[in-house]
Amino acid sequence: MARYLVLQGPNLNLLGLREPAIYGRRDLAAVEADLLHWAEARGLALEFRQSNQEGELIDALQGAAGRCAGVVFNPGGFSHSSVALRDCIAALPVPVVEVHLSNLHAREPWRQRSLTGGAAAGVISGFGEAGYRLALLHLTAGSAD
Amino acid sequence: MARYLVLQGPNLNLLGLREPAIYGRRDLAAVEADLLHWAEARGLALEFRQSNQEGELIDALQGAAGRCAGVVFNPGGFSHSSVALRDCIAALPVPVVEVHLSNLHAREPWRQRSLTGGAAAGVISGFGEAGYRLALLHLTAGSAD
Amino acid sequence: MARYLVLQGPNLNLLGLREPAIYGRRDLAAVEADLLHWAEARGLALEFRQSNQEGELIDALQGAAGRCAGVVFNPGGFSHSSVALRDCIAALPVPVVEVHLSNLHAREPWRQRSLTGGAAAGVISGFGEAGYRLALLHLTAGSAD
Amino acid sequence: MARYLVLQGPNLNLLGLREPAIYGRRDLAAVEADLLHWAEARGLALEFRQSNQEGELIDALQGAAGRCAGVVFNPGGFSHSSVALRDCIAALPVPVVEVHLSNLHAREPWRQRSLTGGAAAGVISGFGEAGYRLALLHLTAGSAD
Amino acid sequence: MARYLVLQGPNLNLLGLREPAIYGRRDLAAVEADLLHWAEARGLALEFRQSNQEGELIDALQGAAGRCAGVVFNPGGFSHSSVALRDCIAALPVPVVEVHLSNLHAREPWRQRSLTGGAAAGVISGFGEAGYRLALLHLTAGSAD
Amino acid sequence: MARYLVLQGPNLNLLGLREPAIYGRRDLAAVEADLLHWAEARGLALEFRQSNQEGELIDALQGAAGRCAGVVFNPGGFSHSSVALRDCIAALPVPVVEVHLSNLHAREPWRQRSLTGGAAAGVISGFGEAGYRLALLHLTAGSAD
Amino acid sequence: MARYLVLQGPNLNLLGLREPAIYGRRDLAAVEADLLHWAEARGLALEFRQSNQEGELIDALQGAAGRCAGVVFNPGGFSHSSVALRDCIAALPVPVVEVHLSNLHAREPWRQRSLTGGAAAGVISGFGEAGYRLALLHLTAGSAD
Amino acid sequence: MARYLVLQGPNLNLLGLREPAIYGRRDLAAVEADLLHWAEARGLALEFRQSNQEGELIDALQGAAGRCAGVVFNPGGFSHSSVALRDCIAALPVPVVEVHLSNLHAREPWRQRSLTGGAAAGVISGFGEAGYRLALLHLTAGSAD
Amino acid sequence: MARYLVLQGPNLNLLGLREPAIYGRRDLAAVEADLLHWAEARGLALEFRQSNQEGELIDALQGAAGRCAGVVFNPGGFSHSSVALRDCIAALPVPVVEVHLSNLHAREPWRQRSLTGGAAAGVISGFGEAGYRLALLHLTAGSAD
Amino acid sequence: MARYLVLQGPNLNLLGLREPAIYGRRDLAAVEADLLHWAEARGLALEFRQSNQEGELIDALQGAAGRCAGVVFNPGGFSHSSVALRDCIAALPVPVVEVHLSNLHAREPWRQRSLTGGAAAGVISGFGEAGYRLALLHLTAGSAD
Amino acid sequence: MARYLVLQGPNLNLLGLREPAIYGRRDLAAVEADLLHWAEARGLALEFRQSNQEGELIDALQGAAGRCAGVVFNPGGFSHSSVALRDCIAALPVPVVEVHLSNLHAREPWRQRSLTGGAAAGVISGFGEAGYRLALLHLTAGSAD
Amino acid sequence: MARYLVLQGPNLNLLGLREPAIYGRRDLAAVEADLLHWAEARGLALEFRQSNQEGELIDALQGAAGRCAGVVFNPGGFSHSSVALRDCIAALPVPVVEVHLSNLHAREPWRQRSLTGGAAAGVISGFGEAGYRLALLHLTAGSAD
Repeated sequence: MARYLVLQGPNLNLLGLREPAIYGRRDLAAVEADLLHWAEARGLALEFRQSNQEGELIDALQGAAGRCAGVVFNPGGFSHSSVALRDCIAALPVPVVEVHLSNLHAREPWRQRSLTGGAAAGVISGFGEAGYRLALLHLTAGSAD
Repeated sequence: MARYLVLQGPNLNLLGLREPAIYGRRDLAAVEADLLHWAEARGLALEFRQSNQEGELIDALQGAAGRCAGVVFNPGGFSHSSVALRDCIAALPVPVVEVHLSNLHAREPWRQRSLTGGAAAGVISGFGEAGYRLALLHLTAGSAD
Repeated sequence: MARYLVLQGPNLNLLGLREPAIYGRRDLAAVEADLLHWAEARGLALEFRQSNQEGELIDALQGAAGRCAGVVFNPGGFSHSSVALRDCIAALPVPVVEVHLSNLHAREPWRQRSLTGGAAAGVISGFGEAGYRLALLHLTAGSAD
Repeated sequence: MARYLVLQGPNLNLLGLREPAIYGRRDLAAVEADLLHWAEARGLALEFRQSNQEGELIDALQGAAGRCAGVVFNPGGFSHSSVALRDCIAALPVPVVEVHLSNLHAREPWRQRSLTGGAAAGVISGFGEAGYRLALLHLTAGSAD
Repeated sequence: MARYLVLQGPNLNLLGLREPAIYGRRDLAAVEADLLHWAEARGLALEFRQSNQEGELIDALQGAAGRCAGVVFNPGGFSHSSVALRDCIAALPVPVVEVHLSNLHAREPWRQRSLTGGAAAGVISGFGEAGYRLALLHLTAGSAD
Repeated sequence: MARYLVLQGPNLNLLGLREPAIYGRRDLAAVEADLLHWAEARGLALEFRQSNQEGELIDALQGAAGRCAGVVFNPGGFSHSSVALRDCIAALPVPVVEVHLSNLHAREPWRQRSLTGGAAAGVISGFGEAGYRLALLHLTAGSAD
Repeated sequence: MARYLVLQGPNLNLLGLREPAIYGRRDLAAVEADLLHWAEARGLALEFRQSNQEGELIDALQGAAGRCAGVVFNPGGFSHSSVALRDCIAALPVPVVEVHLSNLHAREPWRQRSLTGGAAAGVISGFGEAGYRLALLHLTAGSAD
Repeated sequence: MARYLVLQGPNLNLLGLREPAIYGRRDLAAVEADLLHWAEARGLALEFRQSNQEGELIDALQGAAGRCAGVVFNPGGFSHSSVALRDCIAALPVPVVEVHLSNLHAREPWRQRSLTGGAAAGVISGFGEAGYRLALLHLTAGSAD
Repeated sequence: MARYLVLQGPNLNLLGLREPAIYGRRDLAAVEADLLHWAEARGLALEFRQSNQEGELIDALQGAAGRCAGVVFNPGGFSHSSVALRDCIAALPVPVVEVHLSNLHAREPWRQRSLTGGAAAGVISGFGEAGYRLALLHLTAGSAD
Repeated sequence: MARYLVLQGPNLNLLGLREPAIYGRRDLAAVEADLLHWAEARGLALEFRQSNQEGELIDALQGAAGRCAGVVFNPGGFSHSSVALRDCIAALPVPVVEVHLSNLHAREPWRQRSLTGGAAAGVISGFGEAGYRLALLHLTAGSAD
Repeated sequence: MARYLVLQGPNLNLLGLREPAIYGRRDLAAVEADLLHWAEARGLALEFRQSNQEGELIDALQGAAGRCAGVVFNPGGFSHSSVALRDCIAALPVPVVEVHLSNLHAREPWRQRSLTGGAAAGVISGFGEAGYRLALLHLTAGSAD
Repeated sequence: MARYLVLQGPNLNLLGLREPAIYGRRDLAAVEADLLHWAEARGLALEFRQSNQEGELIDALQGAAGRCAGVVFNPGGFSHSSVALRDCIAALPVPVVEVHLSNLHAREPWRQRSLTGGAAAGVISGFGEAGYRLALLHLTAGSAD
């Protein structure tokens, strides 16, 4: 049973509280529970991790290397300035799909460039929590076929 | 039976010939045939349109307004400079999902900003032709659920 | 009886539908009908043309050369990136007045510079459809006197 | 009888002397006399004011608030750098139309952005002194209809 | 008795040692002791926290949410690049006042923009440790009245 | 009894009228009356001055030199472009504290840089009229202690 | 007999009328007639095409692929902003030589960068209509030898 | 006896007090007295004027037009931002020589560009008060010969 | 026996795995073992530390202050954006030499500027692991003599 | 018999050795010999000169003035920064054609702007050594006809 | 008898030929002869040197160090790009006055910044050959007094 | 016995005189003598060359090609603007190590980018004359081991 890491960056633990007009009203636990349920129904094992610390996210990505078939990663605010996370993704032997809840291209200029996204397999942005499902569908072979 | 427009911008008729290292080796007809087959199996009706002309793309988007439930749009090179296409997407009463075969964030700086993407519902970039399926999954209710 | 071309660029056929908070609620047919009525009362013959295609707009401008006494032109989104339209206006032997429904200087930075406007006789921006009348008043001798 | 302030910014008292290739050969007195004559024939009362001082222009704009139905304002060189005048126009309860004798979009880059224009109702640029008449036509109800 | 978090970002534990010409010669313990004394005299309870870790600062801010009436935050060098801290402050249901010991506007260009400050209630910069007292005076109702 | 100049720049005489969502609904007279009352209770003598003229503000700052113990200065829109005011503050032998009613870091990019603030003792921004009190507390010895 | 496409972009149909100080006084028909005559004397077959439409130019380039030995292309104003034309040239299996009548490096800054030229085999700029002959000499084997 | 205006911009009335390391220790009265003495010995009549107000400087420049043979102008901090003063100098029928006490090219980047200097006959910068004498030597025929 | 800290920033624990074309094929343990061996032969004591966390690196730098004679620091991706690390290095009473395995000046533009390097004693870049030896040779008195 | 100078800038003496993937494998002597042979067959006299020194190139250009009918100039790396060479070409009474072996528009951004090319008659770039022949064909009357 | 070096940079040997509208019609020999005559009448010994070579100019500046009381230097096109000349001037123990015949502030943007001028004692620009006399007057004690 | 070229760019012949706070007080002869002594003790033959001429430096680099095992190069002010030197280093078949006495990253912005350094094997910056020794240690096999 293929295992995937769903990794959440800074402030995503505030989901539901933080600017709900942009990020929706459901909290991270609910999002993760539904995603887990959806994944198990498709025979996928998920691990969840959230951290507000850049270094812990790097550790988590590195730790997924031998153990997971892929990573769904929402780097939050680190997407736009972290060369260190970009280097980490570029070095990782498993595919990373970057997900953003909101549409980066419709936001502030300094949110439109994703340094980390340039090292990921691809970027999905603007679909809310459905983005995580789309990312998993892509990572699991044939999922979106 | 919900109908969707799959709209391809400039040079996508060259798919398979054009820089295959970046865009893959299958031609547009094959991509569209597979996508159609995949969609019909899910009860979705697709229309395909490709044009190298900015104005024809605007016309096609406007023409989809009353008739389709959504648009999957790969604006190709127009993504980066067309204020007119952006205005058109912003004015459209149906959702538009922007798809790019390659990962914009990993390419030349002038390909990283998507003017049109800022007006779309969301952007999917870097997954090759699977991106079109992900876009349709998102547009059809419950598709990715 | 002097003849004038009133030329509308991309997405202006969506007038009334598109972002009514910015562009107003009347559609293009109504705007043109009122403008025609207003012009005929002043002894002016008008031709209307709208296109979403950059090249068709160039053709229309060139076609007006021998036949019209002036052009009222709203280039829409092409104002900001089209060197080709600018070159065309610069080459035209009849005066072109550029009109924008909204006030360019109050909008996004990439809408504040008008490449095409630099080649026009002058620019009128921010007065809604009254802008077209002001442009015609200027083009017809003594109109605003 | 509706009253309007026609306000001229720095160096417009030099009209006729200053770079006549750009600004024409008639002096400010002549321009104002003709404009007054034209306005009285249409039942409009005009007040004229010129100042080379940023603060006096702010005072004049504020002073027009209770007394005039609108302001026609040529901020001259202050258009491009005065945050204070922009703030003043934004705060004014009467409409301000900005007029420039020359076409800003055809001049030096640092003359193409109008900070003050972004707070005005609209901007008319490039029509010489006819621009003042166009502005008044717009401000007086039905004038350009 | 209202409780406030006084949160110090990276390198502020070096206070007194680090560039004393800019930051003064007193160490953080002394600054905090005096501030505590001053606050208790005014009936305010203070908590102090310093961390060199971006994620710990985010955790501390989030942790103050239910428990404190406000936060006085000196983000140090993170002010200028941390989108993640900005997002966190924007999401927080308690007011945050940003304090800088030195005057940002008088320093290097890359220290003049405060990303985090844009999400704070306000910014106090240049007053040395008195800035913390001013921030508390503002946060406590009527304090500066 | 120590005397302080409270100096207001352009458009602050419109306080209460101008964009009340940003600047509040109380007019300058009320703000000054309350501030005077608050100051007198603390044994401080205040002088108030407002001008829309850059040069008058320079004169006022220079005039305070021999006579006042400090200046509280809200340069309004001049903060962002006036080299002359910056030079004046830098030359002044009395401390100047710059105050902004709104939070500069949360506004338009061209309002985020304060040229004048770089020459002031410090900058307080975002606290509404309480900012003036905080500035006075800082200027008067021990006030915020 | 080798066949070449000579493709002209927007406004080149105005040759002779448009800014003759820059582009010369001969019209496109004369330029093409002389070029044809010159080419036939050298055993070259030419096809001419001019379009003001970006998409038609893309179609023409693609259409030349199987049929012509090379393309001489003057993209006019599209050179500077068209990512779509650049992509098309990059995808074409026949060599494209870009020609500009005027010297791009001596004109406005926004005419100095040629996006399309970066995908062409080479760029010839500043030699008037002789540039077309130089391009053909290069494309035909041994021509310039 | 030829008459010259020596015009001083903002803060030059603080000469001797203001940043003496840069501007020297002598006050404006002393500088002007010595310059007057030096000029009278050469048969030149001087008028002195200093103002902190942009508009008054424009008025002074315009007022010199009929009456003086030339102007020596130190625009101080206005050099770098005043389009209005630049327009005024460009319109003036008498030669203006711009003088700066300090060497602009050795100071902050935003002091290196002189907008006003571009409209003056020439610029002398970095020679302290000797710069005024050099300017007068240039303005008076044969002076520096 | 002098003690030195050799501090490695984010992703350097992946050495040997990460982009071996750029960073070489030996892992960090091997690099450190050889360096230790080389150092002991020269009578130097080394401590090694690697962290993916910005704050831990700051802690490590601060911790070296009383205990080590110098620090060899490879800040990895943090070099280019971390104001906090720069501040820390600037505050440290022991010399820090910055080392990069690859040549920063030959890489992406956003890797060419080193914020942290500006606060270090010097920067060595492009020599692979030999760079660490060069740094130690410099830190130990007479080492390179 | 018309005489032409073929002038080569810095590093072109390394032709054949330097980055052969970009510049080809033939050395300068071979290139010049073939070009001479080709030119003599067309009745043209050539002089060759190569220098790595900016000033020698200026001297050579000035020296060609009275003696040659034109100059073919490859300024190499000086194209992008030499204001002095640009001034020299602009001052020269004989036509200069600039040639680059590689296509400038396809290389690093700082190689895309040619300062010197803006003063030349025209620029030929991307055709390898055939570019020199094209330049001579253009310089000799009727050559490309 | 004090000795001064008058040093001319690239292309100034073309004086009189080169763009006479900007630089005048007199050649360098005439300019130097008159300047010599003027200087001898004032008891000054002059040396003249012109070079098109950056390094020779550096040598000449260094050579003047022990032997001359000052240098009058027109660096021509090198002013705008030569860090090496700037470093040289900064290192020289004799004063250097930079002179430009034309007014830099009125020319192309890339001619407005003088890198070399920032290291000179001062800059005189826009006065034609009189600028050299002004520079000498400044360098010789009391000359302009 | 391996031979190395130690090449010094412009103004390094002024070492000891030029800004000693930055570059130290020892002159180039002393630096070279010590370096020679140090090298001979390690069996290395050194050649020294200094030139203020860009072209001579290119000649020297090219001349070292067949004869030396490596080059230690301090390009001084040419580092930041010379495309020609960069091209030369890139073409050279022997390794070049770039050395700067001062720490480029701690100086003016226009000294932080090294164009030439991007083509070198590596860059050593900030260690004073010890940098030359470090460079030689790197170039000689095993030197730093």
